[in-house]
Amino acid sequence: MSNQTRQFKEKVAGYPVHASLDGGILVLIGFGSIGRGVLPLIERHIDYDPAKFTVIEPSDEFAHILKKHGVRHLQVALTEANYVDVIKGLFPDGSKGMIVNLSVDVDSGDMMELAHNLGLPYVDTVYEPWPGWYFNPDMESIERCSYPDREELKNTAKEREGGPTCVTCCGANPGMVSWLMKEALLILAKDTGYEGATPKTRDEWARLAMDLGVKGLHIAERDTQVSNRPKGVGEFVNTWSVDGLFNEGFLPAELGWGTHEKKLPPHGHKWDFGPGYAIWIDKPGGETLVRTWVPGVGPQLGFVIVHEESLSIPDYFTVEDDDGKALYRPTCHYAYHPCNDAILSMHEIRGTCQLPEKKHILTAEEIVSGSDDLGVLLYGHAKGAMWYGTRLSNDEAVKLAPYQNATGLQVTSGVLAAMVWIIENPNQGIVWADQMDHARCLEVQKPYLGRVECHYTDWTPIAHRITNFPEERDEEDPWQFTNFLAK
Amino acid sequence: MSNQTRQFKEKVAGYPVHASLDGGILVLIGFGSIGRGVLPLIERHIDYDPAKFTVIEPSDEFAHILKKHGVRHLQVALTEANYVDVIKGLFPDGSKGMIVNLSVDVDSGDMMELAHNLGLPYVDTVYEPWPGWYFNPDMESIERCSYPDREELKNTAKEREGGPTCVTCCGANPGMVSWLMKEALLILAKDTGYEGATPKTRDEWARLAMDLGVKGLHIAERDTQVSNRPKGVGEFVNTWSVDGLFNEGFLPAELGWGTHEKKLPPHGHKWDFGPGYAIWIDKPGGETLVRTWVPGVGPQLGFVIVHEESLSIPDYFTVEDDDGKALYRPTCHYAYHPCNDAILSMHEIRGTCQLPEKKHILTAEEIVSGSDDLGVLLYGHAKGAMWYGTRLSNDEAVKLAPYQNATGLQVTSGVLAAMVWIIENPNQGIVWADQMDHARCLEVQKPYLGRVECHYTDWTPIAHRITNFPEERDEEDPWQFTNFLAK
Repeated sequence: MSNQTRQFKEKVAGYPVHASLDGGILVLIGFGSIGRGVLPLIERHIDYDPAKFTVIEPSDEFAHILKKHGVRHLQVALTEANYVDVIKGLFPDGSKGMIVNLSVDVDSGDMMELAHNLGLPYVDTVYEPWPGWYFNPDMESIERCSYPDREELKNTAKEREGGPTCVTCCGANPGMVSWLMKEALLILAKDTGYEGATPKTRDEWARLAMDLGVKGLHIAERDTQVSNRPKGVGEFVNTWSVDGLFNEGFLPAELGWGTHEKKLPPHGHKWDFGPGYAIWIDKPGGETLVRTWVPGVGPQLGFVIVHEESLSIPDYFTVEDDDGKALYRPTCHYAYHPCNDAILSMHEIRGTCQLPEKKHILTAEEIVSGSDDLGVLLYGHAKGAMWYGTRLSNDEAVKLAPYQNATGLQVTSGVLAAMVWIIENPNQGIVWADQMDHARCLEVQKPYLGRVECHYTDWTPIAHRITNFPEERDEEDPWQFTNFLAK
Repeated sequence: MSNQTRQFKEKVAGYPVHASLDGGILVLIGFGSIGRGVLPLIERHIDYDPAKFTVIEPSDEFAHILKKHGVRHLQVALTEANYVDVIKGLFPDGSKGMIVNLSVDVDSGDMMELAHNLGLPYVDTVYEPWPGWYFNPDMESIERCSYPDREELKNTAKEREGGPTCVTCCGANPGMVSWLMKEALLILAKDTGYEGATPKTRDEWARLAMDLGVKGLHIAERDTQVSNRPKGVGEFVNTWSVDGLFNEGFLPAELGWGTHEKKLPPHGHKWDFGPGYAIWIDKPGGETLVRTWVPGVGPQLGFVIVHEESLSIPDYFTVEDDDGKALYRPTCHYAYHPCNDAILSMHEIRGTCQLPEKKHILTAEEIVSGSDDLGVLLYGHAKGAMWYGTRLSNDEAVKLAPYQNATGLQVTSGVLAAMVWIIENPNQGIVWADQMDHARCLEVQKPYLGRVECHYTDWTPIAHRITNFPEERDEEDPWQFTNFLAK
């Protein structure tokens, strides 16, 4: 530890230092809501050289925070034309360190490849393209799906096995939820008297899910955070990146497709190549609603917005027979009820058919009440359905760390866990959250997750109705996707 | 004028007294948001005997207001079993007066029949059933449609022609919007150089709409009223009756069906009896969204919630050939964007599949900004689309009259206009707003409508998209219902 570092650590005394960058260079791309929130967590828990910490961010809106924390601000927008030069300029030949990509509009694939070529570990929270892709009017829906790119990245990962650890898509979800999924399976195993050993390999985890009869899972989230400043007409308000939400909200809905499913949803399509763990729906995720369940609130509607975990979890938890055919795979998708202001904002955009001009992220200070409850809802097993996840109020978040609301802290603590795991596991090549040590990651993350709770429920998606309008239902198996889909 | 009345009128000096009840008995049923709001308007503009004014209301929540205004409070809930006795008890044999029904859960048909039998004029704002009808699980969607009951009431109206004037469904909408429709046609005629005479009969009005090429109209409303108290989880918040909104919001969508329409919407059904001016959709109106346009906001989504005017306007504006076949009829439906809290409340109910336990109507004092913009959007004519209606901010409403927000005042002033017209036209039998003198009614109402504005727009429902997801479109005729429907 350098003197500078030691001095610094003393400032945030009382927090355990989980890992050290050993004097390497730390580059954080993007200083939006997640970039700002992760900064104090890095300060507390990662040993780094403050002189070698740079944040790349085109805006100077929050430059004062960087200044206050003594972090170098490189005020430049990364583009397809300049990103190689800028990054190489920050990492002289042969230097060590880490790239943490928390930006929008910077291509994750290109950035990860560059990091890998430079021998640098890397982490991001989303598989992001260069600008112009999300709303490109010349692209068909099928070209805007994630599955093909993901399969390509899996091939790249195989080719590059053993290089510097690059974690793709690791925040709260995608990221943390993959770890919660494993912990949830262990709890369910215990609670149902399952007598098998704790899984060690991917195949063993998948078999545990199969043995427990888990037909599928929702990434079931309810964000109840509210401010007392009413959203303005035409203003898009969210508790995290506005661009992030409407970019992914207007992509086609994609979801992991379980082996128990009998029938494709309307406008649903399978893939004719690769392992086929997912399907896509030719409708925006932000207009594709499912019935889901979360503690506190109970039944609610959620958006099937495409997310990496909707593909990575079913892929990971597939049990194959000797011919490579899927014997078992869970259905898996996001079922997201964002904060009320975001619900209204999405509704407004659908009406105006224009991207919003005014954008606002609710700060921790503006939020007067509410929490973000984010977990996995495992269904179809012997105990019906079980939600396991983090229930973090904004009030708690404010006490735990500065610069972020509850939603932010769930993401930034996931990034922190990934950084620690990367340092502890330096030569894993390109990996997904599902392949990481869930217990170690949650150990790092849990102090920031509020109450981590497990709830069983006898709810099913066909349990209640207030009207008797006709709907397509499968009464034999309540856990069919047909029953979850709100038509 | 009795001494008492004169004394009272002096209290509200400065307001024109439009009509006199001539010492008759005034009975107002229901003292909810509309009942409370209409009270000061009656005080100002109708000459009545305070000793003969009774409000029937089971709750004592707002009894203090009645006391303050010197109105007798009969605290009883009207039921199918007691309503005849209660009403007869208030109107001794042969007495004159008026019944103003502003309640929920009191059957409008039964009450109107009783009024008519007693020789009493009557007005209500909605065709309401006795309790248990809206969410009766044993009823099919088709049994919960309005068209059959409306056709029956039209037959009753024919049988009872010339009796005491009973106005069915007359507030803002249904009610005022039928008058705005006529005024809008006259403006459009003038602005397009139409040279015909001002219509005097129903047939002439219908021919004017046909001659102007009006393919259809939306009752296009945007309620932007907001409070700075965030809606609680599980709480249903609205700017008017909560029960009113979710009761009608979960009825099948019904709409007037224009002669230009080429294709029924999904789950759409025609009627096999009667004049067939309407269709019904086997989906709740609160889940049936259309693209529409309002001034200030521009394009937005609205609910096709069933409303009397969606049926009465196309019925009234039908041009028939000599064989009684429809030559021309406009499409007509509600396209309602309620206040943001109501949007959230409806979304929540769809998720919980339970009726809300907590209900709240935003008072004028709680609302910190916003307005209710409610008008007719006439489309398909030579000038594209034209919105004509009332834009009333809550701030203005507060200055104009007590006990109500902007939404309330648009309704209560419609009730006032109906009361005045009824007194002036005592023997018209059962009538709809379309049959009333729109000019006289708007004359009474306009002082309470804020800005009454006319806006032309080049917007069409196929004008803008931010994504290119596949959708059914009719490019040849932008004004087909297919194009309005948001899939």
